[in-house]
Amino acid sequence: MLTKYFIKKGTLTGLVALLFSIPASAAPDADTAVIFNTLLFLIGGFLVMWMAAGFAMLEAGLVRSKNVADICLKNIALFGVACLMWMLMGYNLMYLDVVNYMGTITGPWAPDDSGVMDTGYAAGSDFFFQMVFVATTASIVSGTVAERIKLAPFLIFTAILAGVIYPIQGSWEWGAGWLDQMGFSDFAGSTLVHSTGGWAALVGALILGPRAGRYIDGRVRPMPGSSMPLATLGTFILWFGWFGFNGASQLALGTVSDAAAVSNIFVNTNMAAAGGAVAAFIATKLVYGKVDLSMVLNGALAGLVSITAEPLTPLPLSATLIGGVGGVLVVFAVPFFDKFKIDDVVGAISVHLVCGIWGTMAVPITNGDESISFLTQFVGVISIGAFVTVTSALVWYALKLTIGIRLTPEDEARGADISELGMEAYPEFGKGSQKF
Amino acid sequence: MLTKYFIKKGTLTGLVALLFSIPASAAPDADTAVIFNTLLFLIGGFLVMWMAAGFAMLEAGLVRSKNVADICLKNIALFGVACLMWMLMGYNLMYLDVVNYMGTITGPWAPDDSGVMDTGYAAGSDFFFQMVFVATTASIVSGTVAERIKLAPFLIFTAILAGVIYPIQGSWEWGAGWLDQMGFSDFAGSTLVHSTGGWAALVGALILGPRAGRYIDGRVRPMPGSSMPLATLGTFILWFGWFGFNGASQLALGTVSDAAAVSNIFVNTNMAAAGGAVAAFIATKLVYGKVDLSMVLNGALAGLVSITAEPLTPLPLSATLIGGVGGVLVVFAVPFFDKFKIDDVVGAISVHLVCGIWGTMAVPITNGDESISFLTQFVGVISIGAFVTVTSALVWYALKLTIGIRLTPEDEARGADISELGMEAYPEFGKGSQKF
Amino acid sequence: MLTKYFIKKGTLTGLVALLFSIPASAAPDADTAVIFNTLLFLIGGFLVMWMAAGFAMLEAGLVRSKNVADICLKNIALFGVACLMWMLMGYNLMYLDVVNYMGTITGPWAPDDSGVMDTGYAAGSDFFFQMVFVATTASIVSGTVAERIKLAPFLIFTAILAGVIYPIQGSWEWGAGWLDQMGFSDFAGSTLVHSTGGWAALVGALILGPRAGRYIDGRVRPMPGSSMPLATLGTFILWFGWFGFNGASQLALGTVSDAAAVSNIFVNTNMAAAGGAVAAFIATKLVYGKVDLSMVLNGALAGLVSITAEPLTPLPLSATLIGGVGGVLVVFAVPFFDKFKIDDVVGAISVHLVCGIWGTMAVPITNGDESISFLTQFVGVISIGAFVTVTSALVWYALKLTIGIRLTPEDEARGADISELGMEAYPEFGKGSQKF
Repeated sequence: MLTKYFIKKGTLTGLVALLFSIPASAAPDADTAVIFNTLLFLIGGFLVMWMAAGFAMLEAGLVRSKNVADICLKNIALFGVACLMWMLMGYNLMYLDVVNYMGTITGPWAPDDSGVMDTGYAAGSDFFFQMVFVATTASIVSGTVAERIKLAPFLIFTAILAGVIYPIQGSWEWGAGWLDQMGFSDFAGSTLVHSTGGWAALVGALILGPRAGRYIDGRVRPMPGSSMPLATLGTFILWFGWFGFNGASQLALGTVSDAAAVSNIFVNTNMAAAGGAVAAFIATKLVYGKVDLSMVLNGALAGLVSITAEPLTPLPLSATLIGGVGGVLVVFAVPFFDKFKIDDVVGAISVHLVCGIWGTMAVPITNGDESISFLTQFVGVISIGAFVTVTSALVWYALKLTIGIRLTPEDEARGADISELGMEAYPEFGKGSQKF
Repeated sequence: MLTKYFIKKGTLTGLVALLFSIPASAAPDADTAVIFNTLLFLIGGFLVMWMAAGFAMLEAGLVRSKNVADICLKNIALFGVACLMWMLMGYNLMYLDVVNYMGTITGPWAPDDSGVMDTGYAAGSDFFFQMVFVATTASIVSGTVAERIKLAPFLIFTAILAGVIYPIQGSWEWGAGWLDQMGFSDFAGSTLVHSTGGWAALVGALILGPRAGRYIDGRVRPMPGSSMPLATLGTFILWFGWFGFNGASQLALGTVSDAAAVSNIFVNTNMAAAGGAVAAFIATKLVYGKVDLSMVLNGALAGLVSITAEPLTPLPLSATLIGGVGGVLVVFAVPFFDKFKIDDVVGAISVHLVCGIWGTMAVPITNGDESISFLTQFVGVISIGAFVTVTSALVWYALKLTIGIRLTPEDEARGADISELGMEAYPEFGKGSQKF
Repeated sequence: MLTKYFIKKGTLTGLVALLFSIPASAAPDADTAVIFNTLLFLIGGFLVMWMAAGFAMLEAGLVRSKNVADICLKNIALFGVACLMWMLMGYNLMYLDVVNYMGTITGPWAPDDSGVMDTGYAAGSDFFFQMVFVATTASIVSGTVAERIKLAPFLIFTAILAGVIYPIQGSWEWGAGWLDQMGFSDFAGSTLVHSTGGWAALVGALILGPRAGRYIDGRVRPMPGSSMPLATLGTFILWFGWFGFNGASQLALGTVSDAAAVSNIFVNTNMAAAGGAVAAFIATKLVYGKVDLSMVLNGALAGLVSITAEPLTPLPLSATLIGGVGGVLVVFAVPFFDKFKIDDVVGAISVHLVCGIWGTMAVPITNGDESISFLTQFVGVISIGAFVTVTSALVWYALKLTIGIRLTPEDEARGADISELGMEAYPEFGKGSQKF
């Protein structure tokens, strides 16, 4: 490692550096740039797909053991449903001028040079990257409404969120719609992805009501998660996958400038997560006297959500602070929602909605682009919030009035694993072990 | 994200698009193409290596807790053994004209320009990618024969599968052998990898016999897996790793056409998994009245196996349907094998053999290449099936008649963890916890 | 797969091969090389970041259930703390001539062409890659001192290790310091990362003392880990992440020669892990009569540590043997340290220190560079060992004499989860389940 490093770094490389400074002939050719751009989407895409496993493990660790198999099923099923809906309608609804993925084999979908969009990457790679984003939005909801929602209405809601609600609000910004033209800025989706999922979860929690026994005599009864290592694993998966989420949202890797931008995004994403985790660590120690692991996990995620609206322009120290504020916000947001008896099993509203808003509003602090202002950011947050809240409420209510959305008290007491799936997640441990 | 996106997408980029249409001067130079091709293999390779963790977690979650440490050991040991055998003989047996990896440091193995094969990528990257493929084949067997096979014969079988059986049948197709020349098509290995593992598992299950107490009075006694979240995690890992499995089987990334092809493969791989999961969800709900999580997990894997023979030519909707048929097949195949008292602990025969055959036979539906026909596909399936079945049976029987392959009834009852390893996977939980 | 493969491989491609042999015009242009180099760091960086999850799962699986939440918290918090300290001081302390990351937005940090170092990659990508390396060093310590160290002193030690101790010794070699100029060779950090972590852990274990009840009447009382599948998962994660650790330490991907080198590093990294796992399997079977899963897991890691000092020059068979020796060393090192009542909960000293030394001393066996000798390697091992030992001892003692480093006997007996965090990792299983 070393020799190579410093031979390169030494005085001899003045010549190399000199060569770099000749811009005209040194730029990658057009096809090379297309391949780099496409590769960025593919790498980013598989990292974001992997975040689905992160949500699954986080939620499986934070629900009680009687609901673990059910939350696992919801997570894999919602991913499948979201991808199907995206293919069937979401993609075309969000990007008005993209090619129809179900078009003929000739044309942009074709695996040859004609399969390249005029944005400079293969059509399939864009489709793939956007598809895993919508699945992320859907994943946010499942944790909040866990342990008492029925399977069928949850998946129907997911289908509508992924196929209709997400792409419509997404088109306002990433589809070159009115928010984009107004100057609203949301680099990788603090608002479009995270607070959208958060609003949908909030409305769902309100309409569904809290878990039985959660709030008694004005006090919050703790319902500790069944497996802290799985929750920790889920957090690490999400942290890992977020490099794809934010990094590939640069949308290009075909120039040195883009490569440097993606690098800075990686650094800032990591620093914001570190800042969020450490800030939540300190805040829980100060507020509660003991450090709370689930808060630290959520603090890391809060940092990640906070930096997602603008992971490019901040210096690393600023990114750390932006993430750190997110980590502190979560520590206060979780009891805040409990005060209003809004029962959020995993803290997803605090992480994705509260910090999604914070991150979006913080964009003008580091991004000096003249088209960006606190006012336009506020308009974006409010308009998307209003749209998602109203449409989500309509869907949740429609489901409540028709097929019903909540388990019966008996089924909730027995746990969704037995009542919905007729199985147990850990049949040999805990209560299950008494049968053997 | 947005501004950049749409400045590029706007009318101004007509100029850029125009530049892309000049093919002659825009193509990546030869060395750049070699680097892209090599990088594809390296990325694909580490993703496929990671699938070993997926099999380990899937199987650890689906066996009973008394056999969890044993299945973990088998999974890491089989990976090591498969890699060793591949290095020692498999690679040279499969690819007749490749360089001997143990050759001198000069020549193709050398880490310089001479280390590039005339296929356009570094020799080491090809060796690495092919090595993790054979480990995948070996991983398939362990789940089927779990909970009653002894450790030593299992690993000896793995060594022969990886070092002899897999490379011989593989050479018929990917080694430019007679199946290849006949026109058989198996893009990433529905037959060569998955049904090969499946046949070996089927023969093993037949010769080994079912677990004690599994089939009593013509009924199947359920033996639920010990940890559904680990099984879910394993499925997500496999789904994630499959982008490398299918994507890098394009074998090249050095042209825009290849980049577009890899992108479409990613999309189709994802849609087939989604289709398989959703189809298995619906099928179990219709057939059993309740959704079965382990079936949905296997449904996703079934979709992945089904698309592996041809992930490039289908449109996304077709890929979804091909995967969906796989998901339904698994729901019916699992009870089918139980009817014949073929005890497959994790459902690997249904997933990898049944859907491996389905995926291979489905190639002509979407791939219109004139050299491909249902007949040649059938010949490939049958000939590889016959070869693997006969050779596996010989090895399994030889092991049975010499060192024995099955745990004693007492050891099986106590569990392989105690009898084979003298330890417990979860010493403080379930039965183990009574000691503390 | 096949058709494409062999059309390329066939006689027609003689022409293509011919084109490859024209070196002058075929080399990637300078900007393309910068993008490749940067991409290597980004991919390597996210893989190494993911190793943090591997350490977390390995340790969560190998401690007893009453300390699982605590070790999870330590792992995520140490990662955050290490990144913060690296940003605040470590990076500048290690690389004297690098740009200050907190500099103005113009200059090398800027996301444009000026953000490229004269080593040929984006400054941010280098910062990111080096940052996750220091986190790895910090991760090594937590496993050894688990189950009895208090949270606060552990994190303070981590901060000093990451911000001061690691970068000072690192600067001697990777910072072009005296060890580098002397000819010491440590490609990816067997000594700089792994034995540094190992020495810090060893000193910590000595000063902290063994767990209560661990050594009674001259015998070692087994304290089996709570979850072998999590330990297995952690090992697979580390194996997977190590491709980034060693592969991206090539520091360049912009030439065919570099691509071939990274490929060979991948192969050797994998073979060393396989060799270590299989060797530990055989050694435990021979020594103890039964195979020990935790030894096999540590054997794979031992192989990985052993090859890290020189993953490029060995042929694959040599890499297997180097890793295999590491696997055997671990089997004997673990009881050796127990003999001296050095209580290493997860075996990290045996893996990272013993095999870090072995790997470093083995460099001259395969690397014939004339500047490398056993003597210079020995000087490097000893000097870094002495420095880390002395500085770590000072820090551990200072902490012991001020805030104290050890849980009270009562707190240790109850477990760190309850005493430090006021929670349980598995509240419904094992002892915890009695409350429900």
